[in-house]
Amino acid sequence: MAITVVGSVAYDSIETPAGRKDRCLGGAATYFSLAASFFTDVRVIAVVGEAVFNARHIDTRGIEHAPGKSFFWEGSYLENLNEAKTRITDLNVFASFEPKIPEAYRDSEFLFLANIDPVLQRRVRESMPDVKLVAGDTMNYWIKDHRPALLQVLKGLDILLINDTEARMLAGNNNLVQAARGVLALGPQTLIVKHGEYGATAFFSSHSFDPKGETADHAFRAPALPLEEVVDPTGAGDSFAGGFFGYLASQPELTPAVFRRAMFYGSVMGSYACERFGTERLQQLSRKEIDDRFIVFRELTHLD
Amino acid sequence: MAITVVGSVAYDSIETPAGRKDRCLGGAATYFSLAASFFTDVRVIAVVGEAVFNARHIDTRGIEHAPGKSFFWEGSYLENLNEAKTRITDLNVFASFEPKIPEAYRDSEFLFLANIDPVLQRRVRESMPDVKLVAGDTMNYWIKDHRPALLQVLKGLDILLINDTEARMLAGNNNLVQAARGVLALGPQTLIVKHGEYGATAFFSSHSFDPKGETADHAFRAPALPLEEVVDPTGAGDSFAGGFFGYLASQPELTPAVFRRAMFYGSVMGSYACERFGTERLQQLSRKEIDDRFIVFRELTHLD
Repeated sequence: MAITVVGSVAYDSIETPAGRKDRCLGGAATYFSLAASFFTDVRVIAVVGEAVFNARHIDTRGIEHAPGKSFFWEGSYLENLNEAKTRITDLNVFASFEPKIPEAYRDSEFLFLANIDPVLQRRVRESMPDVKLVAGDTMNYWIKDHRPALLQVLKGLDILLINDTEARMLAGNNNLVQAARGVLALGPQTLIVKHGEYGATAFFSSHSFDPKGETADHAFRAPALPLEEVVDPTGAGDSFAGGFFGYLASQPELTPAVFRRAMFYGSVMGSYACERFGTERLQQLSRKEIDDRFIVFRELTHLD
Repeated sequence: MAITVVGSVAYDSIETPAGRKDRCLGGAATYFSLAASFFTDVRVIAVVGEAVFNARHIDTRGIEHAPGKSFFWEGSYLENLNEAKTRITDLNVFASFEPKIPEAYRDSEFLFLANIDPVLQRRVRESMPDVKLVAGDTMNYWIKDHRPALLQVLKGLDILLINDTEARMLAGNNNLVQAARGVLALGPQTLIVKHGEYGATAFFSSHSFDPKGETADHAFRAPALPLEEVVDPTGAGDSFAGGFFGYLASQPELTPAVFRRAMFYGSVMGSYACERFGTERLQQLSRKEIDDRFIVFRELTHLD
């Protein structure tokens, strides 16, 4: 089944303890699409100034080419590999982005709303009322300063993917389990909290998408891989989302077992994303490498 | 098989967001012993001022009663539930502690060196040359200011259990995988790094205790349970160590599968320790509750 994703496509300049890389391809929609494309068809809605990418089986007809420069971000992980320190954010053409959904995207069964203005997320969501499953991301900025718009988006989400700090901030509760319950009460039926180098935990509401309700009240935790070298963590969360959602979309049925495997595939894609600067590793990856690492993740966590 | 443990027995006064508790039973050897006693026989070496504990099947003949007051610690988790802020440390009788090993302890097959002065850890280790397996803990203070003595201890350890910060500090390397390799080069054949609310990861050297060498180069990660309420995290790491080592000692053979289950039992005991102040929850626990939670941990992490 096909996924439509709306989000940012950008050029990133990144500095980490492993070195520096200028103007590499980045943006949430980019990482998401690359990661998801190993599992299913992906259709991107975004805006760029110059032509930026055309790789793998990603439908880019929804990438608008606007006069001007592409979104540019510069960040450094020199102080803390787990959190980027933003140096420059030039929105450029992204500042006036109005997502337009190509006719060819309208039969997408899956929709991913990457981290952009919740007003735009909502508009895209409402333009695609027939999708089967909607997942989305957001960040501290929207949680703090655009809460009413964000709350509208949450009501239309099946799955929300955010990190620990964002979950605690959104629910106003420091205990993760209580925060998860608070977030689920805002609309999403499933919440995936990303813990960076420690993996991710899924929490389910009693109305969870699983029709048999088997997953309700059972959290599920996928690990992250202890990595020999984290070259660049940029996009790891979006790659997790792409692997997770891509795998879900590739399966005929959404069962608890499929959901769990999807979490592992998300972690696999997140781990690969960190191995090189920008999207370099994802662009060179093979499906066999992905499945091999899936086995490593199983060995990392399973008793037998 | 029996475990001998040397470490602190103390009174703790603790303040957390859940409340305050004065002078409850604490100390690394206490938490360790209680947790391990659900799996095997435990023999404690410690010093106290007043009589403090006599619970479960724990051999307390190695607890010396010295004139004076017991070790007292007061800490607060009001600012950060993951790290205690120490307010008071009164070593009292612990300041001149000289561990003496009762004759009845000498046939112990397992030895646990809880977090005390490495000079004492080494002395106990050398007095029990015939033990089958030795594990130990330490902390930032010994790593920073007593490194030569600590390095001597590490050479005699099969398993070292420390947290992320301590592992990075000990190896002088911020990458966890590289830090683990650095620590393993100092002596221990297995390193367990505790991640607090995110669980724990075991790293194995190529000379790992596993005779078939199956575990070498394969890290193993046990999760922690997302808890509805963390009443008091004091002793969670020692309870992890007690559950882990207690389960190992209860098994006829040390296989990779036994090691993995031991990690899960460690996490189970750590999660219970957090549910009430001090050792309260461990003192009321049943083996059935432990095994029930083991199943929850399996469901939390396993694909099928």
